[in-house]
Amino acid sequence: MSTVRVTVWNEFRQEKNTPAMAVHYPHGLHETIAGFLRTDSALVVRTATLDEPEHGLSEAVLAETDVLIWWGHKAHAEVSDEVVARVRRCVLEGMGLIVLHSGHYSKIFKSLMGDSCSLRWRVATDRERLWNLLPSHPIAAGIGECIEIAAEEMYGEPFGVPTPDELIFVSWFSGGEVFRSGATWRRGHGKIFYFRPGHETFPTYHHPDVQRVIGNAVHWARATRRIPDGARRIPPREPLPPA
Amino acid sequence: MSTVRVTVWNEFRQEKNTPAMAVHYPHGLHETIAGFLRTDSALVVRTATLDEPEHGLSEAVLAETDVLIWWGHKAHAEVSDEVVARVRRCVLEGMGLIVLHSGHYSKIFKSLMGDSCSLRWRVATDRERLWNLLPSHPIAAGIGECIEIAAEEMYGEPFGVPTPDELIFVSWFSGGEVFRSGATWRRGHGKIFYFRPGHETFPTYHHPDVQRVIGNAVHWARATRRIPDGARRIPPREPLPPA
Amino acid sequence: MSTVRVTVWNEFRQEKNTPAMAVHYPHGLHETIAGFLRTDSALVVRTATLDEPEHGLSEAVLAETDVLIWWGHKAHAEVSDEVVARVRRCVLEGMGLIVLHSGHYSKIFKSLMGDSCSLRWRVATDRERLWNLLPSHPIAAGIGECIEIAAEEMYGEPFGVPTPDELIFVSWFSGGEVFRSGATWRRGHGKIFYFRPGHETFPTYHHPDVQRVIGNAVHWARATRRIPDGARRIPPREPLPPA
Amino acid sequence: MSTVRVTVWNEFRQEKNTPAMAVHYPHGLHETIAGFLRTDSALVVRTATLDEPEHGLSEAVLAETDVLIWWGHKAHAEVSDEVVARVRRCVLEGMGLIVLHSGHYSKIFKSLMGDSCSLRWRVATDRERLWNLLPSHPIAAGIGECIEIAAEEMYGEPFGVPTPDELIFVSWFSGGEVFRSGATWRRGHGKIFYFRPGHETFPTYHHPDVQRVIGNAVHWARATRRIPDGARRIPPREPLPPA
Repeated sequence: MSTVRVTVWNEFRQEKNTPAMAVHYPHGLHETIAGFLRTDSALVVRTATLDEPEHGLSEAVLAETDVLIWWGHKAHAEVSDEVVARVRRCVLEGMGLIVLHSGHYSKIFKSLMGDSCSLRWRVATDRERLWNLLPSHPIAAGIGECIEIAAEEMYGEPFGVPTPDELIFVSWFSGGEVFRSGATWRRGHGKIFYFRPGHETFPTYHHPDVQRVIGNAVHWARATRRIPDGARRIPPREPLPPA
Repeated sequence: MSTVRVTVWNEFRQEKNTPAMAVHYPHGLHETIAGFLRTDSALVVRTATLDEPEHGLSEAVLAETDVLIWWGHKAHAEVSDEVVARVRRCVLEGMGLIVLHSGHYSKIFKSLMGDSCSLRWRVATDRERLWNLLPSHPIAAGIGECIEIAAEEMYGEPFGVPTPDELIFVSWFSGGEVFRSGATWRRGHGKIFYFRPGHETFPTYHHPDVQRVIGNAVHWARATRRIPDGARRIPPREPLPPA
Repeated sequence: MSTVRVTVWNEFRQEKNTPAMAVHYPHGLHETIAGFLRTDSALVVRTATLDEPEHGLSEAVLAETDVLIWWGHKAHAEVSDEVVARVRRCVLEGMGLIVLHSGHYSKIFKSLMGDSCSLRWRVATDRERLWNLLPSHPIAAGIGECIEIAAEEMYGEPFGVPTPDELIFVSWFSGGEVFRSGATWRRGHGKIFYFRPGHETFPTYHHPDVQRVIGNAVHWARATRRIPDGARRIPPREPLPPA
Repeated sequence: MSTVRVTVWNEFRQEKNTPAMAVHYPHGLHETIAGFLRTDSALVVRTATLDEPEHGLSEAVLAETDVLIWWGHKAHAEVSDEVVARVRRCVLEGMGLIVLHSGHYSKIFKSLMGDSCSLRWRVATDRERLWNLLPSHPIAAGIGECIEIAAEEMYGEPFGVPTPDELIFVSWFSGGEVFRSGATWRRGHGKIFYFRPGHETFPTYHHPDVQRVIGNAVHWARATRRIPDGARRIPPREPLPPA
């Protein structure tokens, strides 16, 4: 298996002015994610953030990205439509996409779902258990019957997304809600995985099982090649020779 | 809309020797279900039980049944393979089927799912909330954001069923589990709905929302006609005339 | 069953300068479609076209529309993003949407699919047979084993759409291709049906089976109410009382 | 990637008395399939046939089988229910299953689909084109826009199966029909692929693209481990410690 090239994209705003976030992610949430991914020698990992030119997602970067990871929260509206269209085109051509937590409301996720992507939520400290519905799925490799997270923000149903192709994790929250927390969709030639945990003021991305799921998803989402799209005017085919 | 003919099937064994069940269902669980369905003037409701000849499910009865409701628990193995094959054939031809609670392990449900239908369970008194994922689905008509049940047995994931066509309810249990509690599948020309609540020692089938869901499902599951199955040897079609 | 309010939207450009289209649709393709729908007394039908103010799709019109039918071809780019966003919001709230033929490449369909919506195509005169995969589906009511169309444009796979919730028709073309010609998706609270036939220079919308499918789809797609969307910040729920 | 252990099961009856079959498969259809699979050094391939003890599918053989390939036609009824139950259990635990052509009507396929598995068919010599709907799917690796087969038996829709998880190939037949010829389903922890071509009197299994699809499917269907099934009575979990 050849190397998988991963780009971790982070809004990288709240770390700078939210001490409760900076304490867990002093170099930015993207660096924490990139850091644990780099312990997998099959991956080559770079990062990109909102305030870089083109948000760090130039054509050149995306051409060298097999799987893009996306974390955004407060500044979805600041992501340029041009970059969103570019990322979307790359996903449809086969680039894998992993959308984390509040990225459910990013332009790119809404664009690929074709749905509201809305949900219930509560700023609180809930316990969360992500139940493993598909233990034989590669994204769940090494995960037991559930992932336990001691403190997380709550997301609740109904989650405004099309029926997932595969529903891997469903969360239980101590406050009384449930959520489809790990799900996959195919769009064009690209594979998409949404993974719920990861509120910025909790150390969720330091949780070994959360890291394992994201690492698994990177391998699952990578395509072997890009296939450009395009409607085509095609000539009539010649008939097959008689049998 | 013409009349819908419903047959409520119940194992009807535990009521006779389980006081905790008889207190809630003195005439049998089937009579409670039939009773609330009969308040809908669009329905004509009969019952059938395990110990009747042919389990009450003769060809004649099934030919006059638009929707069959199934509750079984301890005696799945006593249902004859012949009757199961008959019910299965009718479902594939278009008869609706609503499987309740422990019916998940009935021969007929396993036969139509083609899967293990296994699940986790715990004899306890959990609180249950069934979250409404598809409020615009006809089965969820009149149901709010969730159904609350004060005391129920726990069922937990993974539930060994094929990916549902539609996932309508997901349960939260106070003990810490989740479950896909309301889901639909199409098999042949028949529509199938599985609905989780209904442990025999709780008054679940007296709950207004539970009654409403079952009533809705009856209308949803009914087909307008039966379509017999059969592979066919067919002659080559004549070509269409030139345009 | 109460009245269904239908709006038939047509680009209405080619009729004016394409004699081969005008001969079949002298008052515009929308009037042909509205005309046969009006023979169903359960429907109230209006039309709207691109060159009307707001393309004929004001908030007021959409608020009174249960099901919107869409035919566009050459002028997809001229449909304003504002109107597309409005239609999209209404679909997510529960308005039904039926997209016809070259509408596969409309902004609204691409927006709701989240996919490329591309396909192969050939300007030619193929014979088409739409095979009926789900004869018990309400959209296929009254349709036999297939719909035969003597002359149509060819659309071929791969069709760049998410896996349909239901695949009702698959087309065979005399030139050697196949296509998923009738399929449904749920987005938000809205039901969407795509139906392939309908090239502008053929009399396809005068075909009785094509008319029947569109009429069936109108009844299938209508919702009983609109449900506004929106992520919500919700307070912790009070715990249920002890069992 | 470690070795994949494949068992090719064949009814192996018609070869002995049907010269039109024996000419293409002189040592049995299973030997032709096993032969081309053995050119892949990552596979270890054995065969099994109906008239061996336990049809060649003892517990020991299945315990050493990662992927089972199934071809049957005239003698489905002679396969013992005990062996079918054993194969089914292994699939649910994670053994891959590839069902070929007339195997659509085998006991094992019907058991896992929970549906009629019926279809239209015609003994004739049609040309077949299998269109590639998911060129980025691993089962379609190396396949172009379609697979062309000069002479095959016709299978037509409706095919009585649950909605596939993935629809990879749809066939066009010169006689005027279409068919979902390559499709996947998940059952328990097992992955199932149905592949249509392969009538016994045609040299279909010598076709390079047909061989490539079957070889791809073997790699796709293999699981990394078996997961025994079973409903479990589980104790209440201890609550998580306060956050």
